[in-house]
Amino acid sequence: MKWISFVYKEVEHYGIYNDSDKTVVSLIEMNGAPKTLCEAIGQPEFMKAAVDFSTTLKRIKVSDVEWLAPIPRPTKNIFCIGKNYRDHAVEMGGDASIPEHPIIFTKAPTTVSGQNALIPAYESLTDSLDYEGELAVIIGKKGKEIDRENAFDYIFGYTVLNDVTARNIQNRHHQFFLGKSLDATCPMGPWIVTKEEIEDPHNLSIETRVNGEVRQQSNTSQLIFPIDEIIHVLSRGMTLEPGDIIATGTPSGVGYAMNPKRTLKAGDSVDITIEGVGTLTNNVQ
Amino acid sequence: MKWISFVYKEVEHYGIYNDSDKTVVSLIEMNGAPKTLCEAIGQPEFMKAAVDFSTTLKRIKVSDVEWLAPIPRPTKNIFCIGKNYRDHAVEMGGDASIPEHPIIFTKAPTTVSGQNALIPAYESLTDSLDYEGELAVIIGKKGKEIDRENAFDYIFGYTVLNDVTARNIQNRHHQFFLGKSLDATCPMGPWIVTKEEIEDPHNLSIETRVNGEVRQQSNTSQLIFPIDEIIHVLSRGMTLEPGDIIATGTPSGVGYAMNPKRTLKAGDSVDITIEGVGTLTNNVQ
Repeated sequence: MKWISFVYKEVEHYGIYNDSDKTVVSLIEMNGAPKTLCEAIGQPEFMKAAVDFSTTLKRIKVSDVEWLAPIPRPTKNIFCIGKNYRDHAVEMGGDASIPEHPIIFTKAPTTVSGQNALIPAYESLTDSLDYEGELAVIIGKKGKEIDRENAFDYIFGYTVLNDVTARNIQNRHHQFFLGKSLDATCPMGPWIVTKEEIEDPHNLSIETRVNGEVRQQSNTSQLIFPIDEIIHVLSRGMTLEPGDIIATGTPSGVGYAMNPKRTLKAGDSVDITIEGVGTLTNNVQ
Repeated sequence: MKWISFVYKEVEHYGIYNDSDKTVVSLIEMNGAPKTLCEAIGQPEFMKAAVDFSTTLKRIKVSDVEWLAPIPRPTKNIFCIGKNYRDHAVEMGGDASIPEHPIIFTKAPTTVSGQNALIPAYESLTDSLDYEGELAVIIGKKGKEIDRENAFDYIFGYTVLNDVTARNIQNRHHQFFLGKSLDATCPMGPWIVTKEEIEDPHNLSIETRVNGEVRQQSNTSQLIFPIDEIIHVLSRGMTLEPGDIIATGTPSGVGYAMNPKRTLKAGDSVDITIEGVGTLTNNVQ
């Protein structure tokens, strides 16, 4: 099942995407429907009923809607794992920068945008706007002190996320947050694939292309800290909640680590494809 | 004017605190009242009408209510400025750690608690739970690219904040976020004092006492990056929104920097007093 948020006739909707005929259905008028997909994720009984009910609903061509991020406005910052692929840690700072423990930072909710949204080039603020293709995990159930063996019970699904980063700001302010939090620098989507559709989230190819040229190519099997460990570490003292988003880290091949650097410029297109999840496409303007 | 949130007869309220007779009034039943103080802050016309209307309302003894943080559930992480008092930067890392640019990190919304709330000791997770008394700024108006000279137009008011930190977790995970984000490690309050009541936010004494003993004693005149500069730097590429919370940093005297270290233990009480704002009191359990 693929869950999405979208704008149709100037109204924000959420619902289900049908791959077979490239249509969407909206659930916002269903009896007792929560206002947003984020809230709905926390109500599994509604979600179950919605799936059954959706078969009776009018299908809208996806070409007639404007995509939003599946969770257009998270209720907290996005959790991000830094340097979680060995080869990316090395390209950014050599062997010494391979982390012994997960590095965790956040992106503000104001960064979130969706499929096809433009990424501002921020030419007056940065000379080094970079892409980072990542698998993101969407939490489905409130939990704390979650053991690794139970971690997957707390997952709702997965999406593709571009952790767009202004490297000069990231470096200048020491902590990663500000360089990761320019408005509209967290495209996400096109949908959330529910976990049932992904046999093994630790064996998915991930690829980022800039103007069609492959820049990042790896597999989630290369994650230093796997998803169950991330959930365990985050939740040891901090409650995770439905709709929380965890970006699991990016592989090597970011533009800033190339020689010469090949960061993003107005006019560039960025596509990130994760096997079994989908392709996220955004242009820089 | 002092704005507060509280629980009365098991219902969450927000309203105004009256210093003269130590009472509160609730505004949640006023016509058109937003659900939370955070939302209300974004509606200045409601806030104005509420002040007039409040004189007609039943006063409730503050001893009959349970304090909440003035914004019990922020809509995003709390922005925090690291090492923003010179003497604290030096005690944590020597002269080399005095920042040239603001260091910005965040605390999860799940950290927020209020006046008198217990701070969990987290004995199984940390041997180094520390206090950090801070002046916090509450944003009143949406804005981006805010000039320093206009920054105060975007402020709603001020509160006292304790940026409780698990030093071992902060250090272990490199980025500050996780060690700053254990549940209930961001007591805040007791109220928000509106900016009109503070003649000069850069000339307020700030003092932290542990079990009555003075540990931190400084003045906001010592901030390396003043409030208008922080707002300018944050908003250059990131939209600030009503109800956003910015913790401006802590002076020297944290327990972790003492020799021997004197971090928090179950049974400790922590009081933070900021001149003209108030005193925030919490016990560790």
